[in-house]
Amino acid sequence: MAKEGITPRAQDYAQWYLDIVRGADLADYAEVVRGCIVFKPTGYALWEAIQRGLDDRIKATGHVNAYFPLLIPKSFLMKEAEHVEGFAPQVAEVTRAGGEELAEPYVIRPTSETIIGYFYAKWVRSWRDLPLLINQWANVMRWELRTRPFLRTTEFLWQEGHTVHVDETDAERETLLILREVYADFVEKEMAVPVIQGLKTEKEKFPGALRTYCMEAMMQDGRALQAGTSHNLGQNFAKVFDIKYADKNNQVQHAWTTSWGVTTRLIGALIMAHSDDDGLVLPPRLAPIQAVVVPIYKTDAERATVLDAVQKITADWKGRIRFHVDTRDHLTPGFKFNEWELKGIPLRVEVGPKDVEKGSVAIAQRIQLNNSQPVAQAAGGKPAKAPKSFVPQAGLTEHVMGLLAQMQSGLFQRALKFREEHTFEASDYEELKERVEKGFVWAWWAGSREDEERIQEETKATIRCLPLEQPAGTGKCVYTGKEAVKRAVFAKAY
Amino acid sequence: MAKEGITPRAQDYAQWYLDIVRGADLADYAEVVRGCIVFKPTGYALWEAIQRGLDDRIKATGHVNAYFPLLIPKSFLMKEAEHVEGFAPQVAEVTRAGGEELAEPYVIRPTSETIIGYFYAKWVRSWRDLPLLINQWANVMRWELRTRPFLRTTEFLWQEGHTVHVDETDAERETLLILREVYADFVEKEMAVPVIQGLKTEKEKFPGALRTYCMEAMMQDGRALQAGTSHNLGQNFAKVFDIKYADKNNQVQHAWTTSWGVTTRLIGALIMAHSDDDGLVLPPRLAPIQAVVVPIYKTDAERATVLDAVQKITADWKGRIRFHVDTRDHLTPGFKFNEWELKGIPLRVEVGPKDVEKGSVAIAQRIQLNNSQPVAQAAGGKPAKAPKSFVPQAGLTEHVMGLLAQMQSGLFQRALKFREEHTFEASDYEELKERVEKGFVWAWWAGSREDEERIQEETKATIRCLPLEQPAGTGKCVYTGKEAVKRAVFAKAY
Repeated sequence: MAKEGITPRAQDYAQWYLDIVRGADLADYAEVVRGCIVFKPTGYALWEAIQRGLDDRIKATGHVNAYFPLLIPKSFLMKEAEHVEGFAPQVAEVTRAGGEELAEPYVIRPTSETIIGYFYAKWVRSWRDLPLLINQWANVMRWELRTRPFLRTTEFLWQEGHTVHVDETDAERETLLILREVYADFVEKEMAVPVIQGLKTEKEKFPGALRTYCMEAMMQDGRALQAGTSHNLGQNFAKVFDIKYADKNNQVQHAWTTSWGVTTRLIGALIMAHSDDDGLVLPPRLAPIQAVVVPIYKTDAERATVLDAVQKITADWKGRIRFHVDTRDHLTPGFKFNEWELKGIPLRVEVGPKDVEKGSVAIAQRIQLNNSQPVAQAAGGKPAKAPKSFVPQAGLTEHVMGLLAQMQSGLFQRALKFREEHTFEASDYEELKERVEKGFVWAWWAGSREDEERIQEETKATIRCLPLEQPAGTGKCVYTGKEAVKRAVFAKAY
Repeated sequence: MAKEGITPRAQDYAQWYLDIVRGADLADYAEVVRGCIVFKPTGYALWEAIQRGLDDRIKATGHVNAYFPLLIPKSFLMKEAEHVEGFAPQVAEVTRAGGEELAEPYVIRPTSETIIGYFYAKWVRSWRDLPLLINQWANVMRWELRTRPFLRTTEFLWQEGHTVHVDETDAERETLLILREVYADFVEKEMAVPVIQGLKTEKEKFPGALRTYCMEAMMQDGRALQAGTSHNLGQNFAKVFDIKYADKNNQVQHAWTTSWGVTTRLIGALIMAHSDDDGLVLPPRLAPIQAVVVPIYKTDAERATVLDAVQKITADWKGRIRFHVDTRDHLTPGFKFNEWELKGIPLRVEVGPKDVEKGSVAIAQRIQLNNSQPVAQAAGGKPAKAPKSFVPQAGLTEHVMGLLAQMQSGLFQRALKFREEHTFEASDYEELKERVEKGFVWAWWAGSREDEERIQEETKATIRCLPLEQPAGTGKCVYTGKEAVKRAVFAKAY
């Protein structure tokens, strides 16, 4: 039985997703602004948690934040050939301002390589100015035809890093550092979502990049979600915007640049990686509220006794456990249990008059992660409800912290096991076609861009990446039969 | 002697300001995007510090963050009569997107009352939904004719709170809570800038508000800077956007709303309140770097010894003092001293081979705040350079923390004293005209909007506010001679 108002995953995955977004109160459709959503407080709190985790890592790796203009002269976008092809059809244009027609229109940034490149050309003079390591938290806009909350919206929020380096080696080091130590580290450790790190093919790379690296996560319908990209832009933008520096021998060189970003679609990834038919499921490290305490009482006297006990129990939680005490008087405990389940709060602690007497509390975990059989139940799609456990108040803080840590690693293990169970190999195109319906398919690859396009037309699947971790040896290309040195991961994607 | 590249305040205050912005590397002109600036890393770090301090207070008073669309249908802006008059001439319009002309243009939000009002009408149903307490961190755009970095730019960053209440009492309580416990508390305690809290006159209130409260700070040229505003919007927006709720008796009522905001112009206020002819001066609580450690050495052996000592000295600073060790090898200590002074870092700690031998360090404070005569020197406009003091390494952490705390309160006291010395009374219009050239003027006020406009034409000064703290009694209006019950503060303003 799915929760009221939530379409079961097994029945209609797309509708299930929308039901979770609405049911957990994460977003509202901004039907009056084409393709936009409102990030409601519960949804925005997830973005704040994501920002905190990423910003810490971005700064720990030596980057600083700055802020560049929202508007970009339209002519800037037109300077890099691939870039204009990729973004020009999607931009929103400001043509009138302050009551007058503008001589040259501006576009609302779809991404900021061009405007930032313009400034970097002014700022960079010498090899001593490099590497220049700047990140920006911003809103961007791409006029998309089909939109879906968090996954694809015309306006979205993101961070975009833009860096300048002396040579290809340093630019490549940066590109991979961000992928591994910032993005993958964050998504796996905080969001509990395992990712495959790899290189995009020419067809899938960022418009204007030399090489695009990415991390790809599997959703519970077996489809891939690109969770972040890191681009080595080569000297393309440096040449177009004239970002040059004097090297140690005082020779003027074009610099090398990188850019990298993750967006609010990570919220979509979070929902689709862990949630179930009862609502959202949040990994404890990211959850804005890790434990909700529901006091249970009938009389005013009981209320006073119970709230007093709650205060004592949670006295040393501050700074250790993010918690909320639900003291709303006009709602029944059952209504509250349902609401907090729907919102994905990892632990619920119930305290009633009998608990006070016995010196215990009842704890319910949002999901059952039986360590002896962690995945058998979850992978089936139907979550097993965790029974309540009764726990002594003495030592409760450590117990709760222990449970949260267990849930965090349990969720990651469950998602990893799910991915393994939905990952296949294909040695010929027929196998690829059949198996890519069920999840990720690894296959040797030596095809062309045109081959890739034909596969996409016929299967709706794309090469998600050429993983950084490759098996040894060579094999036969799944499509052309040619000798191949790399394996690719194929999947249908969000 | 002002620092090279800094025009002395006494010579040209406006140019001094621009020189500080450039010299401390806070911003760059975005000459290719009308009226915009780039917030460079050093400048953006100040905004991050401001955000942290405000966001903590906004959340501590029960508000949550959310995010609403950047674009607003132009027709929304036209719905509230005063609002359209105030903002329509200033908006940037998106008329084309995705390669097509739009049937109805969007405006880039100049402020979000209208779009948020639209959603609140959908979300609010019952008195149980109220108060609805939401804040948004966002970029906004107003097509200004004359711009100046941080103080007035076409795009700027801000927070805008938007709340809904059952009645006037609760809306008024919220409006004043934000003014006092969020805005004034932050600006005075963290930015060390004293403010006058008060009510705007009809002429100066927010377009569409019932009442606007504000805080006004004095800059070092005696002019006022409006540092934040908090509006009781009455039922104006609730009626236009139909924000209604069922009360406890199940009667449908129009709600009451408020909005409140502070912007990146606070960075301008910070600069103009404390800085001097040597560059930026930052209050320690807000400074991204509170102490810079400059190791001094000539040989590699000295370098090793000194850096080893620096590591020991700063071993317990983490989490207590925000510090940076300047290990750049290609710059002289003198160059570094100059740069960190220009950037306003409160304390400089120098460690050389002799200091290592003696077990001491040299400490230079960015500004001299002699506690026995805190203001006499500063108010004259010329900062007295602090001599270096030599301090034992033992107990250094506590000593540094003590100095930082002293500087924080010293800066506030200095600014307060400066304001007192530049605040006057006027009992007639001639006195007002003469004295408002030198600072703030308090005067009894019972004039009309037209009177206020004439005063502005003749003196360039405006009524900054009717302060919340009023003297007892009544007096003669400075302009009309009528009996007046309130005093107003007049000043020229940024």
